[in-house]
Amino acid sequence: MGANELLAEIEAIGRTAAGGYTRLAWDASTMALREWFAGQASALGLALEEDGNGNQIAWWAGESGAGDALLIGSHLDSVYQGGPLDGPLGVASALAVVAELQASGWRPSRPIAVANFTDEEGARFGVACIGSRLVGGAITPEKALALRDQDGTTLAEAMAAQGRDPRAVGPASWLGRIGRFVELHVEQGRWLAPNEAAVGVASAIWPHGRYRLDFCGQGNHAGATAMADRHDPMLTYAATVLAARELATAGGQRATLGRVQVDPGSTNSIPSRVTAWLDARAETDVELESLVSGLIARAEAAAAADGVSVELAAESTTPAVHFDAGLRHRIAALLDAPVLATGAGHDAGILAAKLPTAMLFVRNPTGVSHAPEETATPDDINAGVAALKKVVTDLG
Amino acid sequence: MGANELLAEIEAIGRTAAGGYTRLAWDASTMALREWFAGQASALGLALEEDGNGNQIAWWAGESGAGDALLIGSHLDSVYQGGPLDGPLGVASALAVVAELQASGWRPSRPIAVANFTDEEGARFGVACIGSRLVGGAITPEKALALRDQDGTTLAEAMAAQGRDPRAVGPASWLGRIGRFVELHVEQGRWLAPNEAAVGVASAIWPHGRYRLDFCGQGNHAGATAMADRHDPMLTYAATVLAARELATAGGQRATLGRVQVDPGSTNSIPSRVTAWLDARAETDVELESLVSGLIARAEAAAAADGVSVELAAESTTPAVHFDAGLRHRIAALLDAPVLATGAGHDAGILAAKLPTAMLFVRNPTGVSHAPEETATPDDINAGVAALKKVVTDLG
Repeated sequence: MGANELLAEIEAIGRTAAGGYTRLAWDASTMALREWFAGQASALGLALEEDGNGNQIAWWAGESGAGDALLIGSHLDSVYQGGPLDGPLGVASALAVVAELQASGWRPSRPIAVANFTDEEGARFGVACIGSRLVGGAITPEKALALRDQDGTTLAEAMAAQGRDPRAVGPASWLGRIGRFVELHVEQGRWLAPNEAAVGVASAIWPHGRYRLDFCGQGNHAGATAMADRHDPMLTYAATVLAARELATAGGQRATLGRVQVDPGSTNSIPSRVTAWLDARAETDVELESLVSGLIARAEAAAAADGVSVELAAESTTPAVHFDAGLRHRIAALLDAPVLATGAGHDAGILAAKLPTAMLFVRNPTGVSHAPEETATPDDINAGVAALKKVVTDLG
Repeated sequence: MGANELLAEIEAIGRTAAGGYTRLAWDASTMALREWFAGQASALGLALEEDGNGNQIAWWAGESGAGDALLIGSHLDSVYQGGPLDGPLGVASALAVVAELQASGWRPSRPIAVANFTDEEGARFGVACIGSRLVGGAITPEKALALRDQDGTTLAEAMAAQGRDPRAVGPASWLGRIGRFVELHVEQGRWLAPNEAAVGVASAIWPHGRYRLDFCGQGNHAGATAMADRHDPMLTYAATVLAARELATAGGQRATLGRVQVDPGSTNSIPSRVTAWLDARAETDVELESLVSGLIARAEAAAAADGVSVELAAESTTPAVHFDAGLRHRIAALLDAPVLATGAGHDAGILAAKLPTAMLFVRNPTGVSHAPEETATPDDINAGVAALKKVVTDLG
């Protein structure tokens, strides 16, 4: 089956009324997608393995010994109200490549494995790439298992509820058998379209920080409190949102405030507290630090004027990832494809610390991702499969 | 018992960990407060009546016929994380006045009734003053009973769960027996303190509107989308928050954005939609209209610049209330008290459409209301009771 057909098979799973996808780790939709992946692996005669973290690895054993296998694939979970391709395109393309190569009679010189990494988005438990972090030792099992979703359920409880043993979480032996990992992904942002390329190769992932901002003021009556007597943290928050845009635009960086909680959150009450989360990215670690320190200075100035306090706490920071230069040059030359950096994190970025990894991006005409409008044309999807097949034929 | 002692009796009911009060209609805390009120009425020998809406009326029958009774009292529910006095001060003062007058041997020339109105704040079901609206016919039983709380429970279901018959909701005969209503309340805002008065008399309630603002943009990836390619509704919302302050400050009005919902609300997603609620108040209906139309024009200009859409929908608008002039002049002269307008709604404002009503305000040194810091000194509370006693002696 081709990648477009494979994607069509799962288009009803986890679909929301608004037309997007909410496929969260260990929920009913990602459990259904696991079964689908297992069925595809079985149809291709691949040997399916699930590690203690929930990562699914389907092996096409090949002719040669262990230790230098080629891993392809991606993930099947999504953000809340995400699109159809972020993750599934990489899994579907990998399965399609194996099917095409098998049909053509090509024989790999080393094992080929197709991955479905668990919980890449981190939408449910707040930390992205849990599956690759755990297998690569980038997060401890204790820390991961204690993460809680919005209902207060821990990862350990969510896994146990689906019949998995939380004690099995952590590094897994299959990673030692992998020599290289190439992840195909829909483009996020819009760089390939104006450059008229269907497929690109990743150079690096920008450093990324997530920060919590707490604005504390004085709750009060919305009708009875004169404007001059207010200490309204919503005003300071609003000034901070606009300052974030101004600074990131000026510096060619990215700053987003996409999540906010208001206390008490009543229409007729001036808030006592506004808590917001900042997502910031920049080309270098130094630039990221400068963006965040500039923003907190602006927030503090607004807070002082409003009689409000503000505190910033880093919840997670991820330094820049530079993909293996040799592998990248080899793939870019093989495909005659342009090379571009991305602001989005990936399992291939996490595993870059353990082994040579590379990424292929498939053109996204609108650049929209993490939203229902995320798309790629059927032709570009086929071009992505063809590119990945070339890479597998070359490396495998 | 004095008003300070009565308030001390209920200080543990509905108290939150943060030191405020969350006493919502038909929840366990307001059920406990109903029992407390019934016990106080019984101790004073008052005849307790509960109408089909849940309003409690305790009658001190007096010597004369029906139709010209004097109603005093207020409500016992609160907003989320509210203060101890908004509502309870009026109930406690009314009970204390009856106790003092009974002890002094004074005999009323007409019936005196003490009210505990149900759900004045509207914090649970979204519409304020449900008890007085229903008894006075300002809302239909059908509309009221269908209101839902945040868990989706209707008012009808919440009443039935506490053993009340929703079919009994609506106008009640006791209102026809009331000639005048005087409600004592803690001051909201800060006018009495700088004017060095412990007690004031209300002239009017400002007109008040609640509006929903829907900002729709394009959800996208927070890391991969360049600032210039965004259609981020959070930016338009932030510009609107700051414009609201600017316009209301310039016009001497009040505008508050205290509640906001973000979709999808993920740290690493540019929102697709921000929904916010505007609370706006002004001295006159014309001014209120001008404030809101000025703000929507500013929001639309920001939306156009951001590539976002914005829509405004009025959820409720309440015109100005002018308290009965004769009653107000009589009370102000009797007490030698200053007269002030308020931006806050009250049951006495709703019932002003049905009969002469008046309000007394007790000085609030900080002006803070609808928050844990809401306060009045024990001496000022006693001054309020003394003023209310004077009014009852004069009118009763």
